[in-house]
Amino acid sequence: MAKLYVIGIGPGGREHMTLKAVETIKKSDIIVGYTPYIDYLGDLVKGKEIYSTGMKGEIERCKLAIKKVKEGKNTAIISTGDAGLYGMAGPILELKEDIEVEIIPGVTAAFSAASELGSPIMHDFASISLSDLLTPWEVIEKRIEKAAEGDFVIAIYNPRSKGRKDHLEKAVEIMLKYKEGDTPVGIVKNSGRGNTEIILTTLVNISYEKVDMLSILIIGNSNTYVKDDQMITPRGYHIR
Amino acid sequence: MAKLYVIGIGPGGREHMTLKAVETIKKSDIIVGYTPYIDYLGDLVKGKEIYSTGMKGEIERCKLAIKKVKEGKNTAIISTGDAGLYGMAGPILELKEDIEVEIIPGVTAAFSAASELGSPIMHDFASISLSDLLTPWEVIEKRIEKAAEGDFVIAIYNPRSKGRKDHLEKAVEIMLKYKEGDTPVGIVKNSGRGNTEIILTTLVNISYEKVDMLSILIIGNSNTYVKDDQMITPRGYHIR
Repeated sequence: MAKLYVIGIGPGGREHMTLKAVETIKKSDIIVGYTPYIDYLGDLVKGKEIYSTGMKGEIERCKLAIKKVKEGKNTAIISTGDAGLYGMAGPILELKEDIEVEIIPGVTAAFSAASELGSPIMHDFASISLSDLLTPWEVIEKRIEKAAEGDFVIAIYNPRSKGRKDHLEKAVEIMLKYKEGDTPVGIVKNSGRGNTEIILTTLVNISYEKVDMLSILIIGNSNTYVKDDQMITPRGYHIR
Repeated sequence: MAKLYVIGIGPGGREHMTLKAVETIKKSDIIVGYTPYIDYLGDLVKGKEIYSTGMKGEIERCKLAIKKVKEGKNTAIISTGDAGLYGMAGPILELKEDIEVEIIPGVTAAFSAASELGSPIMHDFASISLSDLLTPWEVIEKRIEKAAEGDFVIAIYNPRSKGRKDHLEKAVEIMLKYKEGDTPVGIVKNSGRGNTEIILTTLVNISYEKVDMLSILIIGNSNTYVKDDQMITPRGYHIR
């Protein structure tokens, strides 16, 4: 019976794909995904039936993938990072009807960015998206507040949306109620994609104009420090 | 110049390792890790110089790996999941002195468990370890409280420690101040390791005796629901 595979391909670079993601793409007849993500796959999808659509076409992609499985084709729908975090796993399971679905996890951008910054996450952390396309801004603000109050390391996805440009500024304002101004902040652009750019700064010194939609921010907790240009969050004690 | 690679091998099964993790292990002369993790690697480490130690030997392993790099050997130190979350990246960077270190990210257990449960994370989430070996219990309690107050999906690592057995009960008690009793909870034992066991329950119905140290718990947010035995957290709207 044909199956729908929801595949997290990691941050973008082939090297961060899992063996299972690669194997599953190879055995799929049809590949569905957002155009730039399909491009990351390069020769892996050569000769396959490919359906790629623009950024806004998520639900359209899900419905198309489900339709292809019903037509008897093994179909892979592509997410970057992990398919189960801000990815395609949710919409597919909400829409799937009676077809068989397998979700293949991947390396999320926050972990890839962390590996490029040092070990900024390491301990308890909260992942928050600043996109208010699907979530009311009030909910996002409350989560930022509670995560900061709990002294979590905070990973910020979608720091800038085409619509409102001041989301990140507002988020930082809230975090500063609980986190020190000199809390280390790592900004990573194009994490895991070869052309990675890294900025190490502090909560009061973020250059907002340098943060784009493809950036991930990692804000430290009260123990996070910088040593040899690496952002380090200890696991709660001092090692010597 | 010899290098120290801190490698996140994913939840355990070979299939969830990234291409880079596999390639890096292959090119390393020396492999250092907790004995059961080394066992996951099987023939990948055949013929290599292997140093494996017990659970309490973490710092000992870090120091040994650093020593081997100073002796000119390319050395890989193994973490399960992602090396940067509750893994070896932090201790290594705290101890590394002047050697070159590269961190290779991986699939963390919460994402592997999520893929086996459906799409329970999907949106903003908090990762919290209940182990108080390195973190005061009061800090852990506060984080559980704030994460629940912020309506985060919550992924619980180390739900049971050999020492105190009532950590999870206490955590649930705190979460019930903000989350409904019928909030879906997914418990996954040995996620991504072939012998995976899954329990779908609710916050008031957790069978604590079935939760062991190798279990990951995912507690839903206020929108999480169960359909066809799958735990689904929507991305903040209804798709139809």
